[in-house]
Amino acid sequence: LTAQEMAAEEEQAQSKKALKKQQKEAEKQAKKAEKQAKMDFAKDRYGVSAMVQSQERLGRTLIRVQDLTPEKANQLVWVRARMHTIRAKGKQCFLVLRQQQFNVQALVAVGDRASKQMVKFAANITKESIVDVEAVVQTVEQKIETCTQHDVELHVERIFVISQADARLPLQLEDAVRPDVGVEEEGRATVNQDTRLDNRVIDLRTTTSQAIFRLQSGVCQLFRDTLLQKGFVEIQTPKIISAASEGGANVFTVSYFKTSAYLAQSPQLYKQMCICADFDKVFCIGPVFRAEDSNTHRHLTEFVGLDIEMAFNYHYHEVLDSITDTMVEIFKGLRDRFQTEIQTVCKQYHSEPFKFLEPTLRLEYQEGVAMLRAAGVEMGDEEDLSTPNEKLLGRLVKEKYDTDFYVLDKYPLEVRPFYTMPDPHNPKYSNSYDMFMRGEEILSGAQRVHDAQLLTERASHHGIDALSIDSKLHKYSFRYGAPPHAGGGIGLERVTMLYLGLHNIRQTSMFPRDPKRLTP
Amino acid sequence: LTAQEMAAEEEQAQSKKALKKQQKEAEKQAKKAEKQAKMDFAKDRYGVSAMVQSQERLGRTLIRVQDLTPEKANQLVWVRARMHTIRAKGKQCFLVLRQQQFNVQALVAVGDRASKQMVKFAANITKESIVDVEAVVQTVEQKIETCTQHDVELHVERIFVISQADARLPLQLEDAVRPDVGVEEEGRATVNQDTRLDNRVIDLRTTTSQAIFRLQSGVCQLFRDTLLQKGFVEIQTPKIISAASEGGANVFTVSYFKTSAYLAQSPQLYKQMCICADFDKVFCIGPVFRAEDSNTHRHLTEFVGLDIEMAFNYHYHEVLDSITDTMVEIFKGLRDRFQTEIQTVCKQYHSEPFKFLEPTLRLEYQEGVAMLRAAGVEMGDEEDLSTPNEKLLGRLVKEKYDTDFYVLDKYPLEVRPFYTMPDPHNPKYSNSYDMFMRGEEILSGAQRVHDAQLLTERASHHGIDALSIDSKLHKYSFRYGAPPHAGGGIGLERVTMLYLGLHNIRQTSMFPRDPKRLTP
Repeated sequence: LTAQEMAAEEEQAQSKKALKKQQKEAEKQAKKAEKQAKMDFAKDRYGVSAMVQSQERLGRTLIRVQDLTPEKANQLVWVRARMHTIRAKGKQCFLVLRQQQFNVQALVAVGDRASKQMVKFAANITKESIVDVEAVVQTVEQKIETCTQHDVELHVERIFVISQADARLPLQLEDAVRPDVGVEEEGRATVNQDTRLDNRVIDLRTTTSQAIFRLQSGVCQLFRDTLLQKGFVEIQTPKIISAASEGGANVFTVSYFKTSAYLAQSPQLYKQMCICADFDKVFCIGPVFRAEDSNTHRHLTEFVGLDIEMAFNYHYHEVLDSITDTMVEIFKGLRDRFQTEIQTVCKQYHSEPFKFLEPTLRLEYQEGVAMLRAAGVEMGDEEDLSTPNEKLLGRLVKEKYDTDFYVLDKYPLEVRPFYTMPDPHNPKYSNSYDMFMRGEEILSGAQRVHDAQLLTERASHHGIDALSIDSKLHKYSFRYGAPPHAGGGIGLERVTMLYLGLHNIRQTSMFPRDPKRLTP
Repeated sequence: LTAQEMAAEEEQAQSKKALKKQQKEAEKQAKKAEKQAKMDFAKDRYGVSAMVQSQERLGRTLIRVQDLTPEKANQLVWVRARMHTIRAKGKQCFLVLRQQQFNVQALVAVGDRASKQMVKFAANITKESIVDVEAVVQTVEQKIETCTQHDVELHVERIFVISQADARLPLQLEDAVRPDVGVEEEGRATVNQDTRLDNRVIDLRTTTSQAIFRLQSGVCQLFRDTLLQKGFVEIQTPKIISAASEGGANVFTVSYFKTSAYLAQSPQLYKQMCICADFDKVFCIGPVFRAEDSNTHRHLTEFVGLDIEMAFNYHYHEVLDSITDTMVEIFKGLRDRFQTEIQTVCKQYHSEPFKFLEPTLRLEYQEGVAMLRAAGVEMGDEEDLSTPNEKLLGRLVKEKYDTDFYVLDKYPLEVRPFYTMPDPHNPKYSNSYDMFMRGEEILSGAQRVHDAQLLTERASHHGIDALSIDSKLHKYSFRYGAPPHAGGGIGLERVTMLYLGLHNIRQTSMFPRDPKRLTP
């Protein structure tokens, strides 16, 4: 036995012991409860329910916490919710019951509906347990500021535990939503990123997390609705591919039966094939995989790509306009339909409202470089933007144009992938663009080379093997007539993060993957 | 040099030679054309356009083929389309121009707008090339039965090639849409599956493929719209996971930096974590990976899963009803909004219209077994359904109830995964269900065990290591209060295939992946 195995056995033995002890304790408690129940007039009004195993289809209506308003005053209702906080005080016990972003105060008090034992039972329910309560809705004289349902409280007549939480929680919800003021206040715990992610099931219950991911669902919905309205077709592209795209760097390898395959770094080639197959305008939403060993605030090894590709008639700005229109529709939709979520996140992570212009501001790369130089940055004409320079440019643009969203058009040809169409008027530049939110890149796109011969030239210029399957597929797609086309790929988690003014992409990925994290 | 390298060099040398020869020929043709052009009054009215490189943003409006109707009679319009067929006849040349599912006849005839040379040029354009034509819309006396635009033809005044297709196509579109009558008609070519898939960019241009994938886009849209309306939240779940789910069979391995990871076989666990994190009702659409070496008409190694998970109050039939409602909304939406696509596919692959009932038919597993036994099948009470028996049961149900869609509820516990909730009234059965379309399974689902202790028991009964990360994560999720919940996963390609009455799943996956196919 290795030391590790011995440790594991030891641990197991200990946990068995602990389990036995727990069981004994439970039995003791049960006996005690039984004895007490004999003299308790309310004994059928509380307790731990049998596991819900679909024993019968009850007709009972459960009222949602958000619907507990003064209109329901004096009604007897059933509510299922989590035990958010519990405070016992003599013959009374005050509970806060939570359901997603909403919560309500509830009172169990010794009287003709509740016994002393029942109040004690309620007081001992563990936090985060799920309970069913039957209660009368009562309006309150003084607003309850700590609950979303200010104007009412519940007077509990029955209370049953539906699912019991462990007594010891790995993190406290109230710590997890404490405003992020940059410095730790004395005596007030905060929860660090890793603890949150290790215990994501609990961290996702906070009002902030609920708001973030409901808004993210909205981003996808707005993206699709806008594009479907414009006549786009949704496509599904394969994630397991036979050849690494764009030269093979940063790609994950998969064992595929007796051979090897790769995880797609983008749906690029497949979107383009759909254009060559006459789908005209396509989009897809799906995972994108990057085997980059980057441990930054904005890189993930797996993220969700919102991808667009579109045939155009004469100029790739036809496509660029479609994409910026779509982004603007997303921004407007979030502003108009997710204001509650935005405000909720803002309470914990303060940020200024996201600003955008109509039409979207479009600057040429050279203009951007000129602005940076005027601000003291030294850089070459055809040099790519570093991350700090992107951020600085974002600040300069915000100062000058008052927008958090803009397009930088006509990137130097050298810094773009081989399939990027060169600028017809200046061979050092290209028909390509990035889009920025709050100074960080969220989309990269371009007119693509749709001519097989030019593509071969460009690939060989980039030192890409012309016989590699990837470039063969590319060329092949263009041999049977290809419309001019352009497109781009958007990072979903970045859009959510930057729209909300958050500072770490792990906050906008439910189960983030980075070089150091593969769980949960 | 190895023999292989020498062969490669030889090939390269030969292709260089061929290229030179081609170039010489092209130069010769160009000179000839130049000479001819000098005496051609129409020389500026046709030719090969320079590659569209976004030289300028032309204001020119292109009319869509589907909009070419008698209302446009006598108007001079620009149209961009593919050269579908070309037939020269003396001083005239008849073209069919195609745009997605639509096509129109066009005529280039020697006269005051077109020269002999121009007609010859048009006659020599390769099929599938993309052209811009300027033409007068003319109504016709006799309906043109072979085109979707029956009532008009185009009288061409200018014609330019925008993107030239190779002269030799790997498959002919007219062969690829020939009705599937089971036997090959003499002298009429058909295209086999592998040729289609190897040349998917061309195969996807057929009216049948266009219809299939537009309808598939509709399935996703209807699925999401229905669920968003019901208050579901869209989630994104990771595809790279640290532990194989459900025991580890049939899972693809990924190299993940210095360690190994797996591709998710389903979003199961993550959907459940979202339910434990209070999202209440969630759905996701994304790739699902199965390393099964199955070469059947209905298995893919990568397919698109439409997944649902939902907390319920008292009985999992609350969830089952939500899912069948959603399926019915999809069927209705397809019937009402995609009739053209359904008819188009039907022309090539005949099938009866898809039938469904409201409310959806729900049979218990035991009833299904009884029906099979009455039809002469011998099987045990707790035996799983074989594929042939599923199909037979589908036929029996169709005969008796006249529906192509039904639910089989209460499967034997033994044949379901360890996290399936046992039936409270009969421990040999479970709260689980499959859904069938035309006798084939499209969804598998169940109430899940949401109690950590019962889950441990069930896992150990199935011989699953209680310390594996997967079951630890499962249990962990349920330790802090878990609502009862149920859900299911639907295969997108199967729904499309079976709704349209197709017989191979490769017809409803744009770029299918199976043990033998990784390209394109």
